[in-house]
Amino acid sequence: MKDLQTALDGRWAAVRDDVRAQLGQLRLSPDPDASIEQYRAEVAEAVAALAASGRPRQGFDPAYGGGGDVGGVVAAFQMLGHGDLSLLVKAGVQWGLFGGALQALGTERHHERHLRDMMDGTLLGCFAMTETGHGSDVQHLRTTATYDADAHEFVIDTPEPGARKDYIGGAARDARMAVVFAQLVTAGPDEVARTHGVHAFLVPIRSDDGAAQPGVTITDCGVKAGLNGVDNGRLVFDRVRVPREALLNRYGDVAPDGTYSSPIDNETRRFFTMLGTLVRGRISVAGGAGSATQKALTLAIRYGATRRQFADPATGEEVVVLDYLAHQRKLLPALATTYALHFAQEQLVTQMHELQRTGATPDEAAQRELETRAAGIKAVGTWHATRTIQTCREACGGAGYLAENLLPALKADTDVFTTFEGDNTVLLQLVAKTLLSDYGRRVGRLDLLGKVRFGAGLVAWTVLERTGARAVLQRGDVRDRAYQRWLLAEREEHLIAGAAQRMRRALAPGADQFAVFNAAQDHLLVAARAHVDRIVFDAFAAVADQHPLLGELLALHGLSVLEADRAWFVEHGYLTAARTKAVTSAVNALCGELRPHARSLVDGFGIPEPWLDCPLLDGEQEPSVVPAASAGQAPTDLAAVG
Amino acid sequence: MKDLQTALDGRWAAVRDDVRAQLGQLRLSPDPDASIEQYRAEVAEAVAALAASGRPRQGFDPAYGGGGDVGGVVAAFQMLGHGDLSLLVKAGVQWGLFGGALQALGTERHHERHLRDMMDGTLLGCFAMTETGHGSDVQHLRTTATYDADAHEFVIDTPEPGARKDYIGGAARDARMAVVFAQLVTAGPDEVARTHGVHAFLVPIRSDDGAAQPGVTITDCGVKAGLNGVDNGRLVFDRVRVPREALLNRYGDVAPDGTYSSPIDNETRRFFTMLGTLVRGRISVAGGAGSATQKALTLAIRYGATRRQFADPATGEEVVVLDYLAHQRKLLPALATTYALHFAQEQLVTQMHELQRTGATPDEAAQRELETRAAGIKAVGTWHATRTIQTCREACGGAGYLAENLLPALKADTDVFTTFEGDNTVLLQLVAKTLLSDYGRRVGRLDLLGKVRFGAGLVAWTVLERTGARAVLQRGDVRDRAYQRWLLAEREEHLIAGAAQRMRRALAPGADQFAVFNAAQDHLLVAARAHVDRIVFDAFAAVADQHPLLGELLALHGLSVLEADRAWFVEHGYLTAARTKAVTSAVNALCGELRPHARSLVDGFGIPEPWLDCPLLDGEQEPSVVPAASAGQAPTDLAAVG
Repeated sequence: MKDLQTALDGRWAAVRDDVRAQLGQLRLSPDPDASIEQYRAEVAEAVAALAASGRPRQGFDPAYGGGGDVGGVVAAFQMLGHGDLSLLVKAGVQWGLFGGALQALGTERHHERHLRDMMDGTLLGCFAMTETGHGSDVQHLRTTATYDADAHEFVIDTPEPGARKDYIGGAARDARMAVVFAQLVTAGPDEVARTHGVHAFLVPIRSDDGAAQPGVTITDCGVKAGLNGVDNGRLVFDRVRVPREALLNRYGDVAPDGTYSSPIDNETRRFFTMLGTLVRGRISVAGGAGSATQKALTLAIRYGATRRQFADPATGEEVVVLDYLAHQRKLLPALATTYALHFAQEQLVTQMHELQRTGATPDEAAQRELETRAAGIKAVGTWHATRTIQTCREACGGAGYLAENLLPALKADTDVFTTFEGDNTVLLQLVAKTLLSDYGRRVGRLDLLGKVRFGAGLVAWTVLERTGARAVLQRGDVRDRAYQRWLLAEREEHLIAGAAQRMRRALAPGADQFAVFNAAQDHLLVAARAHVDRIVFDAFAAVADQHPLLGELLALHGLSVLEADRAWFVEHGYLTAARTKAVTSAVNALCGELRPHARSLVDGFGIPEPWLDCPLLDGEQEPSVVPAASAGQAPTDLAAVG
Repeated sequence: MKDLQTALDGRWAAVRDDVRAQLGQLRLSPDPDASIEQYRAEVAEAVAALAASGRPRQGFDPAYGGGGDVGGVVAAFQMLGHGDLSLLVKAGVQWGLFGGALQALGTERHHERHLRDMMDGTLLGCFAMTETGHGSDVQHLRTTATYDADAHEFVIDTPEPGARKDYIGGAARDARMAVVFAQLVTAGPDEVARTHGVHAFLVPIRSDDGAAQPGVTITDCGVKAGLNGVDNGRLVFDRVRVPREALLNRYGDVAPDGTYSSPIDNETRRFFTMLGTLVRGRISVAGGAGSATQKALTLAIRYGATRRQFADPATGEEVVVLDYLAHQRKLLPALATTYALHFAQEQLVTQMHELQRTGATPDEAAQRELETRAAGIKAVGTWHATRTIQTCREACGGAGYLAENLLPALKADTDVFTTFEGDNTVLLQLVAKTLLSDYGRRVGRLDLLGKVRFGAGLVAWTVLERTGARAVLQRGDVRDRAYQRWLLAEREEHLIAGAAQRMRRALAPGADQFAVFNAAQDHLLVAARAHVDRIVFDAFAAVADQHPLLGELLALHGLSVLEADRAWFVEHGYLTAARTKAVTSAVNALCGELRPHARSLVDGFGIPEPWLDCPLLDGEQEPSVVPAASAGQAPTDLAAVG
């Protein structure tokens, strides 16, 4: 049997241990009184220290001195989330977004020239995709890169205020070069100029002395809700010229005479293929959110296990707040889901590693599945982070509101994770779209007999629902893993089939496609969510036998997913009303069973103690006895002012 | 028919208009780059300007130059929530907590000496109740005030680290005097010294030059998640002596010889009576949370009504994001609930005004109901604020994360509202306790026949539930007001009756009272929540005929409450599965119906335009057409990266 930390550390345990040691040395401790400039300088120094450690190069091409350990570097990145999140994001910009685009979208000429400097941090870059007017719909951003065949140069231009590059990490202070995403416009000999869609260009934005390059206007996004150690800025290009070779030309190239060529004919497919190679950024964000959640839970659970409030009337002794059911319900199901998401993340990273490691065979279907999974886990994981860290703050009361106790920064820094690297709602839509296509393919592949049976299946479904017979046919212990899994899989399948039926209407002649889509949008989002819930459950189930507590946590996670959507299961005849009440009771019971292990469970995350050092955890109190005169209150007498 | 703003402004419309004009003059615009000291200084100046306006004195005793308009001053306070929340909290500390305690717990000798200076801000005070070790359970705080009969003085002392006064607004920088809550210890002639429970004392903490008084150690809580214009601090007392007259002696007094006397014998009852007089603070917090929520929704809805993203495939025109169902679902039900809470707040303030206005007849039952209602609305309203402002931030994407766009401060500043002035979970427990007592009284009053019928009623309930017959017996349009009200009232009654049954077990001989209570804690909290939902609904219903849009908003509010807890209604046989699906459809339909009115609905809040001025609202875009080549995507093709 593995211990919890070994199980959690998984395949890249050695990397994680390395980073733990390294983090201790970095000892970045953001001073809440520091000015934004001081904080940015401190984070920039920490990035330099990370670069000096050689760790970031581990993820890049061995041909240029990289380590080729794609998964390891994402696991290492994730560990930074136990420390300071500005450092995590700043490192993510340099080696994930900028470095990742250089590696994946560039070719030998770019790698040869820039990869080493990027890896060792002597070339600091940024990733200029988002514009003020287009954040989610980046396929339609407005910056242009027009090829000038006479000069053999691209002219990068911001044609309107909405085309300004916005929120770009690293742009305001440190980056020397930007990967700029722009609509490529070119004309071959005797052709009319036309756009070939969005492509990426290497554009120097600052000289070595830090001054903006001619034609580049850089402004500062200023103070943000969090992540104030990251220098987000805005870029406006006024006909900035870069050489033809600045085009990152792996998926599309322009010959000296202006002739455009690409291995992928369809413009949209080409664009999404390019984006797909950048999936590592999204996976990394999900990992960082997980680490921040683990840290918040560690703080709140350790505090809750020592803080006492209100006396037990029988003994006069004040009760540890984590012994209250309501407090357990706030923290323990969230802890179980945090475990589940950790293992789903580990599985995702492994999948990415196998696909992207040097020498791997390209596999379009697997790549597509990876992207869908990454989108779903990022959305669900970052929303879980926002909600859970908020709950942890509240569970620590006034102490949780003080910057010295770390929770405010965890909340504020991770807040943007739900909308950057893909807005979560848009990402779940992407998941839904893939599920619908896959479903269409599955159904399409059936022969005639299969289609008849399939149709009959749908009818049978409806009948089962109407009679409630389904719930009677399938019964199980609500804590049973196979039963939980069956419920989650049925929900997923049912929702996707229903969504497919609704969307089919959009194909009718004269149908208002947008109206059909929009009316079903909430249905699609729920279907996507159900899919993610099922794959997260499966990922946890795959490891849950490594430790008895993992089995219990999985049961609690499964129950809390069922409880949150129990209305759906009743509405669709999968659970009777009596059984959903059993779900609620089982959540309560499991909270009580896991309560004694709460401390061990958070210790399993292996967060270095110096990174948890704050006054919140100083206050371990001895049991204190309230004078008997006033302790004899009814047990509900637990309310007063704060 | 009233216009929306007239309906919302209600009884204290004139006061609200005054404050709007005044706010415009104050023009406090916190600079996100300002140091904490600068921000505190700016807020202190704004407090002085408020004092100079004479507005705060409107809430106090006319005998001392006050205006006696208790309700008006709370309405005015609430309006500050459309401006800067540090100013709101700082004003609340001075005139709500400090001034309120002075007025309500003090007697003529205190009023005569301090009331005028407090009102005009020449005496700045703080409210030193919470301690590091006791926040929710303030009945058991540990600071002592021991009477020295020889010197005719009280000795205020902090006997242990956990007794340190903590998070005290105004303590770190500005307050000269504190109302200190401490365990009163005294001995009459020939008595052994004993405690009489918590009492309040006026303790000077700073001299006029700002230095801490001898024996008082003041430290700074430092940077917080938000509200950094408020100087929260910690107070430690080392045998600080104050005269006998420093005791705020309305509910308990000490004679020169040390004899204790009180109009209320029972120590716990006395303490909660004292606390009850301070209910205005809790009501004010609920109001401030409501204003902040209104402002966040105004920003997000106005942005959502101009921001466009992704093209309609039929027209190539980019779609306004508020036209997406998912976006409407994020914002419009929250808007409806914000309206509902506004009217519930108005009703609460009116109720308080009638009870507390000069010359009102004391009414213990009404006071008790006011306290319960205040606790419930504060809990539900502040959680709604936290959730809604978070959603608004996310609905504005990256722009919502920038300090310049106001949403980050709204989120961070209101975050602590869920745990100060009573932790929300503890407050809902207080509500549940009152509901149980009232229920017990109701049942107790029945004669024998009534009790038999009552018992039969419970049995009948169970039968109806088991057979699902209840849902068949009672049918209605899910949008119908009376039907929604019936459902909410039934849920409340059912949950309270069930909770009472469970709690009765605690009275059995040998029962572990704490265990019985704890096992039912989640049930109690749900019951309290159901009660608050019903009273909020009723408050909205009482005014909903003043404008047709109010009727639609009430329907949406009611539906969204039903939808959120639809599992419960099915589990307990009040709704069939088919009908809960109708609830979801009706939410979607109403979102669409209210969408064209979204701008008018937020304009109704009457937030002065200068307080909404931020780059987020600069960006009204013209409809923009996407090139037809790439617009012909399937309607689900709405996903990319950000």
